[in-house]
Amino acid sequence: MNFDKLFENIKEKQSFLCVGLDTDIEKIPVHLKQLADPIFEFNKQIIDATVNYTIAYKPNLAFYESMGIAGLLSLEKTVQYLNKNYPNVFLIADAKRGDIGNTSKMYAKAFFENMLFDSVTVAPYMGKDSVSPFLEYKNKWVILLALTSNEGAYDFQFTQENNVKLFENVLKKSLKWGTKENMMYVVGATKAELLKDIRKIVPNHFLLVPGVGAQGGSLNEVSKYGMNKTCGLIVNSSRNIIYADNSINFANIAAEKAKEIQIEMKHLLNKYLK
Amino acid sequence: MNFDKLFENIKEKQSFLCVGLDTDIEKIPVHLKQLADPIFEFNKQIIDATVNYTIAYKPNLAFYESMGIAGLLSLEKTVQYLNKNYPNVFLIADAKRGDIGNTSKMYAKAFFENMLFDSVTVAPYMGKDSVSPFLEYKNKWVILLALTSNEGAYDFQFTQENNVKLFENVLKKSLKWGTKENMMYVVGATKAELLKDIRKIVPNHFLLVPGVGAQGGSLNEVSKYGMNKTCGLIVNSSRNIIYADNSINFANIAAEKAKEIQIEMKHLLNKYLK
Repeated sequence: MNFDKLFENIKEKQSFLCVGLDTDIEKIPVHLKQLADPIFEFNKQIIDATVNYTIAYKPNLAFYESMGIAGLLSLEKTVQYLNKNYPNVFLIADAKRGDIGNTSKMYAKAFFENMLFDSVTVAPYMGKDSVSPFLEYKNKWVILLALTSNEGAYDFQFTQENNVKLFENVLKKSLKWGTKENMMYVVGATKAELLKDIRKIVPNHFLLVPGVGAQGGSLNEVSKYGMNKTCGLIVNSSRNIIYADNSINFANIAAEKAKEIQIEMKHLLNKYLK
Repeated sequence: MNFDKLFENIKEKQSFLCVGLDTDIEKIPVHLKQLADPIFEFNKQIIDATVNYTIAYKPNLAFYESMGIAGLLSLEKTVQYLNKNYPNVFLIADAKRGDIGNTSKMYAKAFFENMLFDSVTVAPYMGKDSVSPFLEYKNKWVILLALTSNEGAYDFQFTQENNVKLFENVLKKSLKWGTKENMMYVVGATKAELLKDIRKIVPNHFLLVPGVGAQGGSLNEVSKYGMNKTCGLIVNSSRNIIYADNSINFANIAAEKAKEIQIEMKHLLNKYLK
């Protein structure tokens, strides 16, 4: 998917919501567990129920890998289902990959050729040649970790050299590797006040923002400091939506939660989109 | 596997060689391609031929993921084969994972419970809570990226705050997260001269050293600056061994290459093991 199409979808749905598919066999409704593929069935029902309020889905690879081959088959089916039925949603492989060039090339193949994701999250620690192979695909995206939402973000991401913090340096250097058409950044909602500074470095790029909801970030603050003239935000919510309920009615409750957020996003788009 | 057993294996085999199983369907001998599972067959023959000279194997996850489910099935079979036939070799999942706590926990489950690896490579960018879940398993190991062998290492790993470089800070901080019994570090052979400084920070930990061979690092320099009284080195070679030949005789040639390195390692152990 390209930049213009992504922005078009945001305007059409009046939403910049991404639903995180952190699907955990321990947490899904019991009535699904007797089915042949409970993980896929859960995802399918969540997707069908929330797709009107959502512009992106983000399966978290760890959850599928933790279930072995069966989990990866469920993931493959989920991605195929999304591509077939909802080709206009943006698909994010939340995989936090990154390795030396010839290896990153293989990861790019895994996510962009085998699985048909639009984008993959990548860790910046190994530098340019670990990121570049992902940028060689047309209309595919790297979502580079800049400032993450967790406590551990303070361990290294704020390391300061010549008054530039590491996460700022990641933004600055990587501006030379890709463009706003093929690169986004992860910026945690739990550090929304820093979005003002981040927007000085990357005014036009999309930011993928996790940490609203379960992790405590504020959607209003994220929008206030982070929104630009093409929205520039994809805000993820996982647990608050997909595990809002675990009865037979779970998908409807998930839809209600997604709709609530979408309505808030509509107001925020009216307020802050310049 | 625990620390003592690992050192015992090194003394017994007079080797600190790890063979990297970066198995690429494009590069394996053509005669294998007609078999039901060419990737597993290649790995099996490489393993059987090299195991006397080798104390560890390191499948690179990207190569298997790039082949989809079939690739992951080949990987699973390879790991099972190793655990069953050679329980004394150390198994490294070269996966470069790392995410927020509840997600890293899932990755730990994938590599330590489903796949029965001894260790997994982890990227430090997200800090302590992205690493800790891997450390909760007895006799399992985190191999944390410190100083990588690629060109991109210079982008961020040398960021300097108060005269401490980022990779040194990764070593220093993480000393509080784990011990020499459950934590190792990736240090690229292409930067062997820095091993002297690194050994001042982590005198007793094992280091996983990629970059000897295809990437140009020197085994003698790595040993000179990096070896400690329990060896403390696991040196990886991938392409130079597994793709040394692609005829029907490939496994024998791989064994010869591994043996050459093992003989060199025997001399280096005699010379530098204190």
